[in-house]
Amino acid sequence: MASQFKNIKPAYGFDEVSIVPGQVTVNPELVNTDFSIGDINIPVPIIASAMDAVSSPSFMKSIDDLGGLAVMNLEGVQSRYDDPSEALDRIINADSSESTTILQDVYSQPINENLLGDKIRGIKNSGINCVVSVTPVNAKKLSQIAVEAGADVIVVQSTVTTARHNSQSLTGLVFSDLIKKLSVPVVVGNCVTYGAALELMETGISGLIVGVGPGAACTTREVTGVGVPQVTATMDCALARDDYLKETGRYVPVITDGGIRTGGDLCKAIVSGADAVMIGTPLVQSQEAPGKGHNWGMASPHPDLPRGVRVEVGVTASLKQILFGPTSKHNGTQNLVGALKTCMGMVGASDIKEMHGAELVLAPSIKTEGKFFQMR
Amino acid sequence: MASQFKNIKPAYGFDEVSIVPGQVTVNPELVNTDFSIGDINIPVPIIASAMDAVSSPSFMKSIDDLGGLAVMNLEGVQSRYDDPSEALDRIINADSSESTTILQDVYSQPINENLLGDKIRGIKNSGINCVVSVTPVNAKKLSQIAVEAGADVIVVQSTVTTARHNSQSLTGLVFSDLIKKLSVPVVVGNCVTYGAALELMETGISGLIVGVGPGAACTTREVTGVGVPQVTATMDCALARDDYLKETGRYVPVITDGGIRTGGDLCKAIVSGADAVMIGTPLVQSQEAPGKGHNWGMASPHPDLPRGVRVEVGVTASLKQILFGPTSKHNGTQNLVGALKTCMGMVGASDIKEMHGAELVLAPSIKTEGKFFQMR
Amino acid sequence: MASQFKNIKPAYGFDEVSIVPGQVTVNPELVNTDFSIGDINIPVPIIASAMDAVSSPSFMKSIDDLGGLAVMNLEGVQSRYDDPSEALDRIINADSSESTTILQDVYSQPINENLLGDKIRGIKNSGINCVVSVTPVNAKKLSQIAVEAGADVIVVQSTVTTARHNSQSLTGLVFSDLIKKLSVPVVVGNCVTYGAALELMETGISGLIVGVGPGAACTTREVTGVGVPQVTATMDCALARDDYLKETGRYVPVITDGGIRTGGDLCKAIVSGADAVMIGTPLVQSQEAPGKGHNWGMASPHPDLPRGVRVEVGVTASLKQILFGPTSKHNGTQNLVGALKTCMGMVGASDIKEMHGAELVLAPSIKTEGKFFQMR
Amino acid sequence: MASQFKNIKPAYGFDEVSIVPGQVTVNPELVNTDFSIGDINIPVPIIASAMDAVSSPSFMKSIDDLGGLAVMNLEGVQSRYDDPSEALDRIINADSSESTTILQDVYSQPINENLLGDKIRGIKNSGINCVVSVTPVNAKKLSQIAVEAGADVIVVQSTVTTARHNSQSLTGLVFSDLIKKLSVPVVVGNCVTYGAALELMETGISGLIVGVGPGAACTTREVTGVGVPQVTATMDCALARDDYLKETGRYVPVITDGGIRTGGDLCKAIVSGADAVMIGTPLVQSQEAPGKGHNWGMASPHPDLPRGVRVEVGVTASLKQILFGPTSKHNGTQNLVGALKTCMGMVGASDIKEMHGAELVLAPSIKTEGKFFQMR
Repeated sequence: MASQFKNIKPAYGFDEVSIVPGQVTVNPELVNTDFSIGDINIPVPIIASAMDAVSSPSFMKSIDDLGGLAVMNLEGVQSRYDDPSEALDRIINADSSESTTILQDVYSQPINENLLGDKIRGIKNSGINCVVSVTPVNAKKLSQIAVEAGADVIVVQSTVTTARHNSQSLTGLVFSDLIKKLSVPVVVGNCVTYGAALELMETGISGLIVGVGPGAACTTREVTGVGVPQVTATMDCALARDDYLKETGRYVPVITDGGIRTGGDLCKAIVSGADAVMIGTPLVQSQEAPGKGHNWGMASPHPDLPRGVRVEVGVTASLKQILFGPTSKHNGTQNLVGALKTCMGMVGASDIKEMHGAELVLAPSIKTEGKFFQMR
Repeated sequence: MASQFKNIKPAYGFDEVSIVPGQVTVNPELVNTDFSIGDINIPVPIIASAMDAVSSPSFMKSIDDLGGLAVMNLEGVQSRYDDPSEALDRIINADSSESTTILQDVYSQPINENLLGDKIRGIKNSGINCVVSVTPVNAKKLSQIAVEAGADVIVVQSTVTTARHNSQSLTGLVFSDLIKKLSVPVVVGNCVTYGAALELMETGISGLIVGVGPGAACTTREVTGVGVPQVTATMDCALARDDYLKETGRYVPVITDGGIRTGGDLCKAIVSGADAVMIGTPLVQSQEAPGKGHNWGMASPHPDLPRGVRVEVGVTASLKQILFGPTSKHNGTQNLVGALKTCMGMVGASDIKEMHGAELVLAPSIKTEGKFFQMR
Repeated sequence: MASQFKNIKPAYGFDEVSIVPGQVTVNPELVNTDFSIGDINIPVPIIASAMDAVSSPSFMKSIDDLGGLAVMNLEGVQSRYDDPSEALDRIINADSSESTTILQDVYSQPINENLLGDKIRGIKNSGINCVVSVTPVNAKKLSQIAVEAGADVIVVQSTVTTARHNSQSLTGLVFSDLIKKLSVPVVVGNCVTYGAALELMETGISGLIVGVGPGAACTTREVTGVGVPQVTATMDCALARDDYLKETGRYVPVITDGGIRTGGDLCKAIVSGADAVMIGTPLVQSQEAPGKGHNWGMASPHPDLPRGVRVEVGVTASLKQILFGPTSKHNGTQNLVGALKTCMGMVGASDIKEMHGAELVLAPSIKTEGKFFQMR
Repeated sequence: MASQFKNIKPAYGFDEVSIVPGQVTVNPELVNTDFSIGDINIPVPIIASAMDAVSSPSFMKSIDDLGGLAVMNLEGVQSRYDDPSEALDRIINADSSESTTILQDVYSQPINENLLGDKIRGIKNSGINCVVSVTPVNAKKLSQIAVEAGADVIVVQSTVTTARHNSQSLTGLVFSDLIKKLSVPVVVGNCVTYGAALELMETGISGLIVGVGPGAACTTREVTGVGVPQVTATMDCALARDDYLKETGRYVPVITDGGIRTGGDLCKAIVSGADAVMIGTPLVQSQEAPGKGHNWGMASPHPDLPRGVRVEVGVTASLKQILFGPTSKHNGTQNLVGALKTCMGMVGASDIKEMHGAELVLAPSIKTEGKFFQMR
């Protein structure tokens, strides 16, 4: 059989790999997990997704206090509703059968630019870093307003973002122009390939978000067939980062976004080359999250082609416990930072960059339970 | 272990691959999805299967009005019953345990050649393209009648069709003779390999249908062991098409038939090299389909060796919604054309031929749901 | 990671491969399916396993009349009980929890050599070929008795059989001696590798049975870790057969035994190089089988280390329907010969040897059902 | 897609491989299964894990009498409670939802060094080998006390152990120093790679325990992402053993620990290069085990990051039956030594070292049950 129409290379996700212990081990208390965006140093390499179920102003304060970061979506309920709690409750309380319809309705309310500025000023007044996200189509207008209101970092994010986008608009988004115009670091995503990552870095961005298709609240791959599993996507973009660093001396952090549910997934993302991860579902399970145990992707409310679903994940613990423990959960969903440090110890990595040198093997998930005995 | 008795190469299906986003993106509103059979241009590259649960004269009108195409089976109920609604109802209302027996009985009614001509003339009077299908054994006789009655395209289709068939008949079907005799384009299938595809193209056919074994209403692979997953089958036949084009300058469109259930599958078929897809199950779910939410393969009624089953798929929306949305379904079963255009945008393809250049990766289906949380 | 302790090559089973259609097709009515053991020509390449749930004297007559063959186990209930019906009923009616214990008890009754001779004479009187099986440890004694009573073929079969067996016995079994002593063809199994197959052929055997571990009523692989999937095992032994033929001019048919449940599996075994298949479960489902819809392996009653289980498979049709149809089953469990002939037609093979030249691809089983719709 | 950030090699577990029968077979009664640690010869290559649910003083006596070995955990309940039965009952009787919390509480009781010495003296008085385990952090202090009390072998075991550990402690554990100081053999684990295994052997250890992540009562891989499937881990460490033997003439036995549930798994571990196996779950199912049908990993009670779970496995038979049969179980969980000897017979291996030469193939688990028939 002559299969030369095109090559199909294998791509791997978190469930298919595991991390190989090192030849040296390190005491977990000695490891350093920080990373930077521009001049902002972030001790905990965990960023809350720009999703309304996760990142509200009060949640941003909570996670910043613990060393992490959250991104507010400038096109979500915070910028559409003065008091978004009613809108959030409508989504949270919707029946499963009507939840997408209600999402579509809630997000049909227009964005209020004044409100947007007020929210950012409120966040800055709480004394934390203010990172906000926009989609490419609104990037020029909204990012300008956000920076003027005090935003510290602008994230431009859509399902797939490239440095070259063909549209009929005469005034399409050019990242290098945007970056010159704004006085703050710009982080862009999402991206999954070496070539697209390199082109985006060459526009001057200060961070790259990696991931198309894999999130728990995302069905892009089922709907459009598009998606690259996260281990391979992260490895390819990390290679672009390292090659770009060699060429230019500038280090652009890579942030893996989507599909991370456990400490194990987080560790695998870092070993795959990520400097930090962006997560939604694990944080929605915190008492501090506005989703009250529910999550939904920001493509879920799309009026014509929704690519996501509202999922119920439950509230399990405080944000502090989810990040640092202690915990009685043994499934990897709590004490994410403890898991990362323990992993770094077993791998013998004293910082995130040394984790990039650890070894991975292909090893399908183990499912021993229920084979000859039952969990209680 | 000396495993040299024969090579076994890997073959891939839709669930095993996904599409890699491009280095350039395109506004979905700018893309063009059309393809042609002979001189007939078809704006929407979706062809309804030649199955009685899908393609009735009224359904053919509905899908033609929306830019697509349906194929009427000249050996189905439309040519056996003056009013096929009673026969269809018997199948639809049969108990699961007796459905194959009833299919065998319904299709034991002989084909009425006069009726066949009347149906075709009726379809032509509705002002649409009339595409009809026959099996190789009946091709010479029925296709002649169909063309005389006004059919625009003849499809000759069986489980496996080759340019060379050994039988004891003195007057076996020779495609080049048939094509010379008929004044309309002839589309032939099904086929899954480079060699068989090339030989069929060399007989002068105007379209090639690809797929053996994978359909939802087909159990050919379980019954006979024969089948090739659709991504590989499409890639091999598309390579034959491209090689044949280089050699002759003639472009024979490739139509992937079977196993496509979602927009994602459709997009993967196109990226694998298809110019269009033939689908049954997704269209049976439309209000316009005669199967009223049921589907069955045309090999299912085989009296000695049925290779299929009647399945219940439910009615979910209008044909227009299934093709163009809007939708609140997030599982890829509605707004198939919207999904294709969105995918083309993410891949950076402005037409179907550019989609043939997109990249695929091997990436097993993601099943995150139910791992640490439940869908509502 | 230095993985050079030993190579681990991939091995394939029926579920992992499918058959590629040919470039030529043949009318199924023109194909020939026969094979031979010694001078005995067998039109239908399907041999009933030497299991008590399948092969009784009356079943042997039924399948011989239809062109196939059954093997009576000389160490089963037929040689232990004058009227085995009561013993069979005890097994059939046992509770699941006690079935292995009851199997162990039923088979603790000693073999009666006089009874054994009587049974063989009775079979010969019914006018059919009489093929009987023994284990290596009893081969010398029982095969002599069987041949004197009129047996036409002796099968020497155990879980794993080699030409060289190390034991403390001074009078161990030497196949070449046994074959010289007996006046009838000797078939030996089970075997799964090229080397062991070649050595067994060199002892003068007239047929080789292939398969360790894969049967539905066998748990050898779970208990001992030993087993080779059938496609690879058959391919390796078929290669030994072809190499031995080239060297000696003698053709030793290869019979794949174990794991075949459908027409599709049967066809894949033949394409993998088998001349015939040995099956249990599909035939136990016939009205003629003594197991009344139950099956158990002959290692299941082992007193210390049972490696099998009694399974209930149900009675679904007459033996004739299971072999030749007609059928309303669409899952491949009936009309096995029709399925083989249809496959040969699609592959373009006019006899079993041409089937050995057909192509296989790696293609995991398709499970479309239940994805977006439910079977009724 | 340029995937060169790092290589990802495949790694295999028990479920993915099977053992190929040999070209010679051996009578199982003739095989020898013993191995040695230092001067201690152990006839049955099965070691009970250093888990409180398995190894109590009375269990150690029972398995020693049968030819095997058990390891007492010096940091478990035996050294924390004078009479540990109440503590064990609290764990055993805990609700599933609170079991990790109760484990954390039970193990918060401090270790009593006097008690520890008394327990060891009691074990020695029963006339058996006394093998005890400690974690690296407590190795220097507790192993000295244990040897003085009469321990015959010291096992130093943690999730991942290397010869080089970076910590802030000025008096970190140096294995070569420990070994010089103690007068008894030291066995160290766990380890999964060639390089770490070789470095550990070079410190003078008398045995290496292999396995990170795969145990039934262990969730290290889910929590931290770290783990290597056992077949590959064992093969890599066995290669280090063989290379070290060639270089030094000293043979360090390799003990595979974790993930072994059946005789089949045990046999695969040996064929992968292990000299013996360490098992928990299969032995907890014995009437003699203190866990009364429950098991939990020794990382499960970790106060901040528990990596394990208490599982209920049931009590199924006497320890003698589990090791030597007879049995009516056909799933491989009983008569483990009989399974090993039967396997050795099929492979043609007369001792453990000859088993290391047997062939493995990649062959995913067979799941025929429930396909076309149901188990009773």
